[in-house]
Amino acid sequence: MTDIGKRVLSGMRPSGKLHLGHYHGVLKNWLELQEKYECFFFVADWHALTSEYANTGGIRESVIDMALDWLSVGIDPEKSTIFVQSSVKEHAELSLLLSMITPLSWLERNPTHKEQLKEVRDKDLGTYGFLGYPVLQTADIIIYKADMVPVGVDQAPHVELSREITRRFNFLYGEIFPEPQTLLTPAQKFLGTDGRKMSKSYNNSIYLSDAPDVVEKKIRTMKTDPARMRKTDPGNPEICPVYMSFHKMHSSEETLNWVKDGCTTAGIGCIECKMSVLPKVQEELLPIRKRREELSRNPALICDILRAGDKRARVVAASTMKEVRGAMGMEF
Amino acid sequence: MTDIGKRVLSGMRPSGKLHLGHYHGVLKNWLELQEKYECFFFVADWHALTSEYANTGGIRESVIDMALDWLSVGIDPEKSTIFVQSSVKEHAELSLLLSMITPLSWLERNPTHKEQLKEVRDKDLGTYGFLGYPVLQTADIIIYKADMVPVGVDQAPHVELSREITRRFNFLYGEIFPEPQTLLTPAQKFLGTDGRKMSKSYNNSIYLSDAPDVVEKKIRTMKTDPARMRKTDPGNPEICPVYMSFHKMHSSEETLNWVKDGCTTAGIGCIECKMSVLPKVQEELLPIRKRREELSRNPALICDILRAGDKRARVVAASTMKEVRGAMGMEF
Repeated sequence: MTDIGKRVLSGMRPSGKLHLGHYHGVLKNWLELQEKYECFFFVADWHALTSEYANTGGIRESVIDMALDWLSVGIDPEKSTIFVQSSVKEHAELSLLLSMITPLSWLERNPTHKEQLKEVRDKDLGTYGFLGYPVLQTADIIIYKADMVPVGVDQAPHVELSREITRRFNFLYGEIFPEPQTLLTPAQKFLGTDGRKMSKSYNNSIYLSDAPDVVEKKIRTMKTDPARMRKTDPGNPEICPVYMSFHKMHSSEETLNWVKDGCTTAGIGCIECKMSVLPKVQEELLPIRKRREELSRNPALICDILRAGDKRARVVAASTMKEVRGAMGMEF
Repeated sequence: MTDIGKRVLSGMRPSGKLHLGHYHGVLKNWLELQEKYECFFFVADWHALTSEYANTGGIRESVIDMALDWLSVGIDPEKSTIFVQSSVKEHAELSLLLSMITPLSWLERNPTHKEQLKEVRDKDLGTYGFLGYPVLQTADIIIYKADMVPVGVDQAPHVELSREITRRFNFLYGEIFPEPQTLLTPAQKFLGTDGRKMSKSYNNSIYLSDAPDVVEKKIRTMKTDPARMRKTDPGNPEICPVYMSFHKMHSSEETLNWVKDGCTTAGIGCIECKMSVLPKVQEELLPIRKRREELSRNPALICDILRAGDKRARVVAASTMKEVRGAMGMEF
């Protein structure tokens, strides 16, 4: 394989406890990546500030909670470098340097920026830092000379912007950085208990840390096809999150057919349908929860793991910055 | 005096060798300040990138040349902390944090930014970093909890912007920083040999490092009142740089009257007028040049002085950042 020895970088904002959407959408992919590549996974706590600057009280706990979930699903600090962005100050230095060569218009044209400014109404996102987060993101990526960045389709324009900034740097100061490639993650919109995308802010999530009875209750009461008011009404599985997310993720062809037939003919009830997939969800969560409980008993260990990762990341970042300063003639 | 123990911060972009305009406009003021306050003087090499990003080759030499001039005029590393901005990475970290809370509109409304975008035509200043330089400048100031910033009238709006950003930080995270006060430097437009403001880019400067014969030649050939074509034409000293900058800076009341009378009545010639002030200029430059020559023989000493200053600055900056991270809940 030609990809051996390649470096992958990915990060997540510290949103606290992770849910099944994160697991199926991101973490399962990371687990595969860490077997194939040299992976750097980081907690993007500085990025969290772009939207959470007025309410930073919970960031520290969220960082720890998220790292705990990463470790619980099997992200392995022996295989991957797991670290906290703000512990590697070199990201800030490179971001500052990149800011000097990044045209304002590239950032202003960024579609995600425009969209979020429009969509998010409960926070004031009109800050200098929010406009510039693709610059910081570029620093995050290239400071490790990452070859690949796993992202969903919606994030691909950001990596494209990072490539543009990288090309501009290389043009001005010499070929220091590889252009990071997009490693498209299959778009996986995992649905929550209300049928919308699973998201903390929608209060529709099943968390990796939920106890079995909580998981059962959430699945038992989750919404199905809203047109199926009574058991005798036929349903449409294609708009039912139980079918679309849970059964599709876990059930055999045979079971899927049983659900489709039973639902569309009102042959089975929603509870029956839900309970047939519940054991699979519980089974999936069992080892994660078990490991999480073990780790939770030793919070110092989480900090130690992060600190060791910070250190490893810093060595790479510091070496890159030495090169960058040299290329720019800014070395003292 | 109530100001004893107060801290002053000031910086200059590394523009290379300094001229008499810098000396009379900035450095003489610094010399006074260092006797009264705890001073931090820094070479703003990151700021230089806002306009020089495409041409960074000369920055290192400019830093050294400028530091050499500072030391030559008497900025004393025993009294003041003299350091290089890019050697104290904490400035970048604080700048990044401040970027998250700084409304874009504050920067877009910055009159200097608008003006320079219009005026500077040979460089593309439409970068993210150039828009944000008041944010970095704020970090430069408050990371040392500076009480006062000496600036000219034209720079006062920037300090006002820094105060606004500081207030916003203190409001969000607690009273960490004093609001930096403006210490207005008397506006001193020192004129160059062509009658315009003395400036490297106008090629009209007398440098602190110019040899005596160079100084003499520059003054001998400098422009005077352009209407005074012949010695027999009366002149107007109020528009003559020899009178406005050199005589006004150095000459006694008596000599000033002699010039005014002689010039307006065509009683003295321009060379006579120039030669009467030349010895004063040479006398002023003599000890500076002497010290500069001594220091130049030992370039390692300049680096050592800067490194010792970097170290002192870093101790203060690191301690502030510890406090900042604590206040923001970003401490790991």
